[in-house]
Amino acid sequence: MNAVTEPTRIEADYLIETAYDPRQAAEAMAGEQSSGTFVPIPGETPELKERSAARIERLEIVEEVDGPSLPGASRPKGEDAAYRRARVTLSWPIDNFGPSLPNLMATVAGNLFELKQFSGLRLLDLRLPSIFAGAYPGPKFGIAGTRRLAGVEGRPIIGTIIKPSVGFGPRETAALTKTLCEAGIDFIKDDELQSDGPHCPFDERARAVMRVINDHADRTGKKVMFAFNITGDLDQMRRRHDLVRDLGGTCIMASLNSVGLVGMIELGRFAELPIHAHRNGWGYLSREPMLGWSYVAWQKIWRLAGADHMHVNGLSNKFCEDDDSVIASARACLTPMFADKPCISMPVFSSGQSAKQAPGTFAALGTTDLIFAAGGGIMAHPDGPAAGVASLCEAWEAATAHVPLAEYAKDRPALAKALEAYAA
Amino acid sequence: MNAVTEPTRIEADYLIETAYDPRQAAEAMAGEQSSGTFVPIPGETPELKERSAARIERLEIVEEVDGPSLPGASRPKGEDAAYRRARVTLSWPIDNFGPSLPNLMATVAGNLFELKQFSGLRLLDLRLPSIFAGAYPGPKFGIAGTRRLAGVEGRPIIGTIIKPSVGFGPRETAALTKTLCEAGIDFIKDDELQSDGPHCPFDERARAVMRVINDHADRTGKKVMFAFNITGDLDQMRRRHDLVRDLGGTCIMASLNSVGLVGMIELGRFAELPIHAHRNGWGYLSREPMLGWSYVAWQKIWRLAGADHMHVNGLSNKFCEDDDSVIASARACLTPMFADKPCISMPVFSSGQSAKQAPGTFAALGTTDLIFAAGGGIMAHPDGPAAGVASLCEAWEAATAHVPLAEYAKDRPALAKALEAYAA
Repeated sequence: MNAVTEPTRIEADYLIETAYDPRQAAEAMAGEQSSGTFVPIPGETPELKERSAARIERLEIVEEVDGPSLPGASRPKGEDAAYRRARVTLSWPIDNFGPSLPNLMATVAGNLFELKQFSGLRLLDLRLPSIFAGAYPGPKFGIAGTRRLAGVEGRPIIGTIIKPSVGFGPRETAALTKTLCEAGIDFIKDDELQSDGPHCPFDERARAVMRVINDHADRTGKKVMFAFNITGDLDQMRRRHDLVRDLGGTCIMASLNSVGLVGMIELGRFAELPIHAHRNGWGYLSREPMLGWSYVAWQKIWRLAGADHMHVNGLSNKFCEDDDSVIASARACLTPMFADKPCISMPVFSSGQSAKQAPGTFAALGTTDLIFAAGGGIMAHPDGPAAGVASLCEAWEAATAHVPLAEYAKDRPALAKALEAYAA
Repeated sequence: MNAVTEPTRIEADYLIETAYDPRQAAEAMAGEQSSGTFVPIPGETPELKERSAARIERLEIVEEVDGPSLPGASRPKGEDAAYRRARVTLSWPIDNFGPSLPNLMATVAGNLFELKQFSGLRLLDLRLPSIFAGAYPGPKFGIAGTRRLAGVEGRPIIGTIIKPSVGFGPRETAALTKTLCEAGIDFIKDDELQSDGPHCPFDERARAVMRVINDHADRTGKKVMFAFNITGDLDQMRRRHDLVRDLGGTCIMASLNSVGLVGMIELGRFAELPIHAHRNGWGYLSREPMLGWSYVAWQKIWRLAGADHMHVNGLSNKFCEDDDSVIASARACLTPMFADKPCISMPVFSSGQSAKQAPGTFAALGTTDLIFAAGGGIMAHPDGPAAGVASLCEAWEAATAHVPLAEYAKDRPALAKALEAYAA
């Protein structure tokens, strides 16, 4: 079980569910995704096939279940076989396709999920030979670069989002940005629904917002980081990126599932600002537990492509994800990918966050190297946004000092009122 | 129910499952994906919100189910509410983001699938204002352009795939191509696992294969269409495309889920050859019936981006998909998207196909405007690949003439042996 990963093979871990013998089913997976053929082909030789074959590295049966998780699977004829789940690790020689992320996708997550043998198949994790580290940029800024540009050390970067997502024009966006700058915020992001519509054209929004941010920086020395959503076609992304850079902006945002892998790789190569990677659509890749992708596998691909910040949801969030999964995702972003090139992305906590989640987040993660973003947790604070930001900073001070929030709140009214307001 | 689509609004149909009142749940979707906020925000006005709000156009309750399809959903407190499924149509003003495919994705398929109100949520279909037709190229070749380049009229384009997927070098690939050309094939594709590895470098493979194809064309006048898998980073795809073009090749292939949307849009803009779009990975987007994407919605995005050929699986295939779903997918590709710009993609039937599926495919579809690809159905024919190709052509002749296969096979040994060999 502790086999050392060969540096020339790619490894992928899956959770499978099948009514067949799990090893035979795993062999079908390996064949389908490498040199397998259903009929002998002129020209193929055992040597050719062996050189390129995927291999089963490990297989461990986990449990038996009553019925199939997904429809459409077949089962052995004439048998009343049970459905069994197993963890299986496949490996491929890197020489099958070289250090190419798009071709990695087609191999580890290609025509597998529909194979008739399986009533469930989920990609759990990936391990890549270090040749990938040389082929892709990885995050250019990561934690250190983001902290330097945001001017925040020793605590999480406190962030928020412009809401309503759509409806605001450049003027309203800039006005809200001003309020948030004055409230002491570190980081603001566009919503993923706000891009470049006629009511809020990108250029006009970027100019209006950066005027506010630059003015505030001139007065106070603090330049708030604003993640402008540049999601669009490639030429649009390039132009918007350059505009933000030229205006003195310090961050751009892109939706991973909208842009896709090749677009993100290209952005990762040309970006001169941290890339705030939004995962909207993640639900369709992951919400069925016996299908699709685990975040632990998925995030590695985007980090290598250059994502500096990765969304991981938040504790007690407004979505369906449980806290253990959120923490596993954040830990994954903070775990080095390669010895010489860790490719660490800064995890972004968001969705229903307020002062209350700080202790739990710190206890589970043991670090403040994260962006902690709150919408209502700041804007809906009874004493206004400045008190909202203060309550989050105080909550994180308490968390890192291992002091209970209620105690720390005794002589801190911003935190005290937050604990009251966000009690539900 | 027959409301005319307003030309300035985007419409999306969903299948939802919820323990809440379906209309209230749909309102939550609409709010989340447009101007909704959980708390009132300074600067927002009813006019701003109304201008950008998503709207429920239609809602129809379909059925009640015993339990939730997906884990993690919440249910109304204190009630023993049933889970109900409904079809709901939401619409958005195009001015929320303009005619941008990536931003369309973030809106119609963004942070929806994880909303706590839903124990199931699937995107069924999409209708786009015609301004999208002006913003994207659509298929440059489609059916007519593909037929012209392949020199095939009045019947399906008969295709096959190079197997083993990996293992073959350029020499073996070219040798198999020669066999297939001599067998009378119209179309050959790389496997999606074959890209540019050191054992089979792209350039060397393309040169060796095109030497065979060009020689054959010089001798016979028939230029076999070979879809070279150019999947890779953007600069690689561009370079490989140009090489294939310069060598006289007539098709390139890319994996949609590996390249992603922005990369495919870019490819669609620069491609001078038909784009053969491979859907590997489709299973993780679709296999849970209450989650993700229907092909009917999904294929529209790629057609607009420029996909000339779209994989739709095949009847009695080796995967989990049923025949009705396969036919619905193929019909979708053949249905015009806009009155002035139909964006028709040629459906590609593959996976376990042989002479046997021709009549069923023609009966369901009523056209021969498709690529019919068989691996074993050609290579494993008892009398060899030429007989395999002949058997497929004969099967389609029988289908279009409405003659039963068995009858048509009486004085046609290639078809007769195919019916015997692929009896299972």
